[in-house]
Amino acid sequence: MNYSDLVKEIAKKQSFLCVGLDTDFNKLPPHLQQLDRQDAMLTFNKAIIDATAPYAVAYKPNVAFYESEGIDGWEVLRQTIEYIKEKYPDTLVIADAKRGDIGNTSERYAHTFFDQLNADAVTVAPYMGHDSISPFLKHEGKWTIILALTSNPGSCDFQFITNENGVPLFHHVLKTAAGWGNKENTMFVVGATQACMLEGIRQIVPEHFLLVPGIGAQGGSLEDVALYGMTENCGLLVNSSRGIIYASHEEDFAEVAGQKAAELQKQMAELLEEYCNF
Amino acid sequence: MNYSDLVKEIAKKQSFLCVGLDTDFNKLPPHLQQLDRQDAMLTFNKAIIDATAPYAVAYKPNVAFYESEGIDGWEVLRQTIEYIKEKYPDTLVIADAKRGDIGNTSERYAHTFFDQLNADAVTVAPYMGHDSISPFLKHEGKWTIILALTSNPGSCDFQFITNENGVPLFHHVLKTAAGWGNKENTMFVVGATQACMLEGIRQIVPEHFLLVPGIGAQGGSLEDVALYGMTENCGLLVNSSRGIIYASHEEDFAEVAGQKAAELQKQMAELLEEYCNF
Repeated sequence: MNYSDLVKEIAKKQSFLCVGLDTDFNKLPPHLQQLDRQDAMLTFNKAIIDATAPYAVAYKPNVAFYESEGIDGWEVLRQTIEYIKEKYPDTLVIADAKRGDIGNTSERYAHTFFDQLNADAVTVAPYMGHDSISPFLKHEGKWTIILALTSNPGSCDFQFITNENGVPLFHHVLKTAAGWGNKENTMFVVGATQACMLEGIRQIVPEHFLLVPGIGAQGGSLEDVALYGMTENCGLLVNSSRGIIYASHEEDFAEVAGQKAAELQKQMAELLEEYCNF
Repeated sequence: MNYSDLVKEIAKKQSFLCVGLDTDFNKLPPHLQQLDRQDAMLTFNKAIIDATAPYAVAYKPNVAFYESEGIDGWEVLRQTIEYIKEKYPDTLVIADAKRGDIGNTSERYAHTFFDQLNADAVTVAPYMGHDSISPFLKHEGKWTIILALTSNPGSCDFQFITNENGVPLFHHVLKTAAGWGNKENTMFVVGATQACMLEGIRQIVPEHFLLVPGIGAQGGSLEDVALYGMTENCGLLVNSSRGIIYASHEEDFAEVAGQKAAELQKQMAELLEEYCNF
């Protein structure tokens, strides 16, 4: 899915919502926990996807939650991505994997997520620099989403370290990594909990899409994210995981997830009208 | 495996060699490529492990190479670790995974590698800070190996950025992350290609074990690593992957791997005598 297709999908659905599939067997509704773990997770994912698809332009399976179930979990991840790509082919699938290693190893990670699992995008960590990320960027028609400023408390430990000119590390990452690819194949992770930082970030990457986690359970504000981060092509994918998928633990979990996604979509439509005019 | 057990094993084998299991089906000897991929990789690993076990104190399967084979690859990884733990229980198994995410997600990665796969150690990326690493440190008797200064060209992109006091990022990572755990549960990755940096690193972490990739194919020098990085308890695990496991592509691959490991062990024994007296 390329840049203009993504913008079209956002305009069509009047939404820039990404639904995070942090699927934890132990948090599933009790009636699903009666099934075996693999069936339970896949049934849950399909129901969440079907209920939220009218309101979401992207899904973000969090790879750790599948990997920690062993090979059954990898099979759930594979089938989940396959389900989305077949039934909702205009929707972006982001493998949230935070990978990154020396070149020949990153090549293998890129192969896993892009070729084997058919994800459209994968999240990567920048610490090891250019040759740890370039193998992902070589995959045409795919997206590499680089951590810049994350939503967690630990983001303060290193990401704000300033150089002798007062430039924080995350600005340096944005500036440097933006030069490795372009707005057609690169996005950056910027946490909603740091929304006021988006103004400075937009001076460095005025057009790139930003993947914004941290609204909902982590406390970030959707309005602030749009105010400081939205571009004329939207330029944002705002993720919500727990606030949608675990909004109900009863048999109505999918219906309630759909309602929560619809609520966010409605707010997003208003923000798109205010800042984007589409 | 705790700190003193690791030191004992180094003294016993007169070696601080870690063999990297970067097992790539396409690089296996032709006679093994006749088998199905899973059998071929597992047969190869077992033969390499048996041939090198007298000379190695650690094995480091590179997770990307298994993950990229899909669920069959995960099964090879699981069985490889099981094989080492059963047959060579005094040998450290490092899952080279470079993981790291927000707290609840890192918990899942830690569960995967420590509880499910029974690795003794896992490599993690520091960019997301304390709460991305603390879930790994909570596992008693396990090791968390944090990237500090890597061996690849991209290490120059961010790791050497200096703050207003001239302190490079990798020093900041070492100093900060050393305070999250202790020498009993934390190691740091320092590339052999940057051996001259080890002197400064030892001023920050005088006692921690360092996992040192980059000798052999990547060009680092074992002598320099020992000169600048060795402590009275050795404090080093030096990794070699391609230089050992792909030294021969013929039917004698395991025998030649054993010879290469023995050569390194011999050099290591001399360095241990020179710098450690054990």
